[in-house]
Parts: sequence; structure tokens; C-alpha cells
Amino acid sequence: MMQAVVFTAATGAPELQDVPIPEPSPGEALVRVIRAGICNTDLEIFKGYAGYEGIVGHEFVGVVAKLNGPSESERHEINVGQRVAGEINLRCNKCELCNGTDNARKRNHCPERTVMGILNKSGTYAEYLTLPVQNLFPIPEGVTDQQACFVEPLAAACRIVEQSLVGKGSNVAIVGDGKLGLLIAEVLSQQDCSITIFGRHWDKMNLCPDKITKVFSDKSDELTKKYTDHFDVCVEVTGNMGGLMFTSAITRPLGTVVLKTTCASGGFEFNTSPFVVKEIKLIGSRCGPFDEAITLLKERNINVDKLVTKIYPFTDALEGIKHAGIKGTLKIQLCMG
Amino acid sequence: MMQAVVFTAATGAPELQDVPIPEPSPGEALVRVIRAGICNTDLEIFKGYAGYEGIVGHEFVGVVAKLNGPSESERHEINVGQRVAGEINLRCNKCELCNGTDNARKRNHCPERTVMGILNKSGTYAEYLTLPVQNLFPIPEGVTDQQACFVEPLAAACRIVEQSLVGKGSNVAIVGDGKLGLLIAEVLSQQDCSITIFGRHWDKMNLCPDKITKVFSDKSDELTKKYTDHFDVCVEVTGNMGGLMFTSAITRPLGTVVLKTTCASGGFEFNTSPFVVKEIKLIGSRCGPFDEAITLLKERNINVDKLVTKIYPFTDALEGIKHAGIKGTLKIQLCMG
Ligand SMILES: [Zn+2]
Ligand SMILES: [Zn+2]
Repeated sequence: MMQAVVFTAATGAPELQDVPIPEPSPGEALVRVIRAGICNTDLEIFKGYAGYEGIVGHEFVGVVAKLNGPSESERHEINVGQRVAGEINLRCNKCELCNGTDNARKRNHCPERTVMGILNKSGTYAEYLTLPVQNLFPIPEGVTDQQACFVEPLAAACRIVEQSLVGKGSNVAIVGDGKLGLLIAEVLSQQDCSITIFGRHWDKMNLCPDKITKVFSDKSDELTKKYTDHFDVCVEVTGNMGGLMFTSAITRPLGTVVLKTTCASGGFEFNTSPFVVKEIKLIGSRCGPFDEAITLLKERNINVDKLVTKIYPFTDALEGIKHAGIKGTLKIQLCMG
Repeated sequence: MMQAVVFTAATGAPELQDVPIPEPSPGEALVRVIRAGICNTDLEIFKGYAGYEGIVGHEFVGVVAKLNGPSESERHEINVGQRVAGEINLRCNKCELCNGTDNARKRNHCPERTVMGILNKSGTYAEYLTLPVQNLFPIPEGVTDQQACFVEPLAAACRIVEQSLVGKGSNVAIVGDGKLGLLIAEVLSQQDCSITIFGRHWDKMNLCPDKITKVFSDKSDELTKKYTDHFDVCVEVTGNMGGLMFTSAITRPLGTVVLKTTCASGGFEFNTSPFVVKEIKLIGSRCGPFDEAITLLKERNINVDKLVTKIYPFTDALEGIKHAGIKGTLKIQLCMG
């Protein structure tokens, strides 16, 4: 048996339970989890998001404990004992989106997919998990467990670059100073563009690289007026409709708005007018390249350690989850080892 | 003096009035209007949209009556007596968007612009109007007045092609069978793609070219389910949020939604989730290339005549406006000559 954080709609809250250690299916590895990160999506799941029930969590670093079958040629560097991070989308490998030439990120849209900790696949808040070997990425020596646990959200930040949404010399705004906003700031600061972050927490914004301009977002009409039509590319990470409408106002005609998270209405209505009148491109951006994220960590181009608020031993997982839900908290990690 | 349809917020309704014939400013032409088309935007203006007051209308064909100044080299083919259509955005010619190399459509976003019949520039429901000569396009002999009056909305339909939103072999949906939807159907039927139109009026959809698949849109869950993730590119022209959410449902992962009109909420809430999860690109599309539209009409590749419901003499303009507001009406034109 193992310990795991399980959510069911019936109880309506996460519980630390003893559950059986999972058996890897053919092609899968059994992974002993070393560390798991708590993401806002997890907190949403505790409120009923996506209707998910089961073991929660999708950020982790772990060690391969057992393999079920893939031949050595299919395994790449994945052997028992290897430290790994893992892609959360489990694909069918059979459909059009999983195959074809340009399949790099299309496979994340496989209609038959399950998603770890989100859709029909057990998550990472557990002592063990299973994932297809093809989802696993080796973590190099120089990257710590704490850092490796950021690979998944960092890959999501890298997705913006992969989608070619930020051009050379682009004037970019990041609207929102939560965990994901700060990771995006780190990633985009590696690009040849100028960046402004709009947030409501100086302590968080000051964690951003010096070259990034920080603006306190007081939601005033003056602020909107000052930055109207100002940016080529705006990344919306507030997660609310008011933030999205502010973002559309500060985007220039023919510019781009990147949607990294779903937006709760929160009393604001979506207005299509700026998108039509300014011919703005609004584009969703989800999961990204693990290899890029691992390279950024390995080459120490990115500082993710400063984003960790606290590490909880796994026995105190529920306390850690509570802490993660307090406004202003950055990354909480659960430590299994 | 001349007759014109004038809207003021004070009266809250269009009125046929005697007003002075306008004087062309330097660089402008005085144009005698032959025919004006009634667009949904005009009907919205009568409800207070854009806060516009003055002479309404932006679709027209006319004859140049007088020129104020442009030298012959700047005039191109625009001389007194020339039949013309005209771009509705009046640019400043000085700002970054008006100049530069790739300025073809950027100039429509000039922050100093006025817009004929919509923003600080008198419109086309009048016996005369003025426009900068640089906004005018000669209409070739073979194109009738009735057809030429479609150049502006047809150019807006052509904008989708100009924005390179429809690829070779794309599976395209047009959601909405109003005037603009039918024009878009005509334009896209010239492209190498397969097209399905979703509408609520068989009589309108049956005006579309044979090669276009027609689907009666009953807004049922079954219909949504049947076409979920089905199309590469979806053009939203219902103008309501329910239509936009249906459109987002039938767009495939990594696909494109084209927004041609602003969407009234109408009891539906905008949900960002499909855009993030499917990484859909939502892109606004406004005014387009007049030269392309004129070429389509000249080469008789497009049949716009079938979209005319009725032509009213200008003295009956108010009756024509009333008719245009009746559900199911296609194009109403006002005839001045
Ligand atoms: Zn698949
Ligand atoms: Zn300008």
C-alpha cells in the first residue's frame, strides 16, 4: 500500500488515504515520486473543476522503480533508477493527432487522451505513480529535485515561445503576477524582447529579472488609458475576465493576446469589440516542451528556486494544500522522500 | 442643400433632413451618391452603437462631382465623372500605422482615423458625400451600380483570405446565414477549401453556391456533438455569444475562429475554456481589400445580385431602413439617382 491524496466529489475535500501501489500497464513505468508541486489547477479540482475524482496532482519528479515491457530501443534513457519528469497528457498513439509528421504538440490534443491528475489518470500526490515510458524525460545530474519539480509548469511557459508568439524585438506584457506569470517572465526574459509585468504584489514582481519593467496594476482607468494599444503581445495569466479585458485594451491593433489559463467571469463580461475592431489574435496556450524546460534548468538560465514558498513533508500534504490556497502564496511542494 | 438621413441621440431615430451639400477638404473629392446599402452596423447605430451622431451609412457607389486639389499623379484614375466606391477608414497619413512598408491594412488601424458613417465622418445615406481621393476606387464598366454598392462588405469578406486564415484544403465552417455570412460563402467558395454553412433560414442558405454544404442550425446538443472538433477554420457571423460558443465547440484543436462581427451576450456567457484547452486561435477580421472585391465583381466570379431584397428610392429611405430591420431581410439599397 501507499499514501496518496485523493479527492472525491462525495467528500468534497482532499483526503490522505492508504491506497494500493499501482501496477504499470504494458509500456508504462512505475515511478516512485520524490516531490510533487501544487498547481492552481489542483486547487480548482478541489472545487469541482473538470469533475475529476481520484489521486490529484500533475507536477512531479521521481525515480523509475519498475518497467513493464518497452524494449531497450523504445526506452531511450529511461531505465530503473533514472530520475524523471513526465508529460501529463497520455496519448492513444493511433489517431491522426498522435501520428503524422508535425505531431510534436498535436499529440497533446489526442481526443482519446487521459490527463494525469485531471482526466481519468491518477496523479502525482502519491508515493508512486505510473506513466507511459514515452511520457518520461530524464533529469540531468545538475538539476535539483526542487528544480526538476518545475519542469511541467516551465514547459507550459515555454509553449509561448514554441508557438512563435513572441517575435524578435516584441514589446510584451505579462498580465498577472502569480506562479505561472513569474515563470513566463523568466522564460521570456531569455528572448530578445522587452517585457512589462502588470501585477498586484510588489514582492512577487520584484522576483522577476531586473530587465523586466514592473507596473502595479491598480485596475484604474488611468492605467488602462496610459497603456492603451501599447503592446505587441500580451500574456493573460490573471485567470479572470477583468484581466482579459484589460489585456485586450493594452494590446495594439493587429497584436496578440495569449490565453494561458481559463478566465472566471468574476462580474466582468467578455466584450468581443476590441478583438474585432483591432483585429487582435487571441490564442490559447497549454502544455509545452519538456526538453526545452529541462535545458533551461540545466543551463541555469532560469531561477525557479526563488518561487518556492514552502516544502511540506508528504504526511503534512493537507496542510500544504491549505497553505497553497492562501492568496499570495507561490509554489508549495510536497516531499515524499 | 441636399437630402440626408441623419441620426441624433436626442431624437433616437433616423430622420430625412435637408442639410448643406458638403465642401471637399484639400485632398478630398465631392461624390454624388448613386446608391447606398444598408448594413447591420447602421441599424446598430440607430440603437446607439458607437455613439455616432450625424449622416449614417458606409456602403455606396457614386460619381465624382468635384475635386479639391490632388495633383494628377496623386489622383490615379480618379477624375470628375468617374464612378467610384470608397474605403470607409480615413487615415492621418502621418503615424506609424499609416506609413512603413507593410502598411496595406495597418492604415485601417490608424489611431487618428475617422470612419465614414461610424466615427466623426458623415456617411453615405445622402445625395453627396466627401472622401479623400486616396480612399476612392474606380468601378469598371461591366459592374452595375447594384453590384458596386456591395464592394465594401465584399471587401470585408475578402479580408479573411487576405489574413491567410483559410489554407489550401481547409475544412471551413461559416456560422450564421445573414448578409455577411452569405458574402463570405461566395468569397470562400473561390478558394480551394470545403465549406459548410450553419444557419437558421433554408431560403438564405440555398442562395449559397451548390458546392457549399448547408446545415440547419437548431442549436441542439446533438448538432454540437455531431460537429465537435470538426472544422479547421470557423467564421463566426451570428453576432451573438451563443453562436460564438457553438463555433468554438465545432473548431478542431489548434484550429482558427474568425470573428467578423461583435457578439451581443444575449444570455450566453463567454467561456475561455475551449480556447485554452484546444489552443484555438480567435482572430478579429474587419475591413478588407477593395481592389480584390472589385476584381471579383468584374470577373463575375461572385453573384451579389441575389442578395438584394429590395431597392427603395431615397425619398422612401426611412421605409427602407424599417424594412432592413425585419428579420430575414437581406440587402436593402437606397437609390438616389
Ligand atoms: Zn491519439
Ligand atoms: Zn495614421
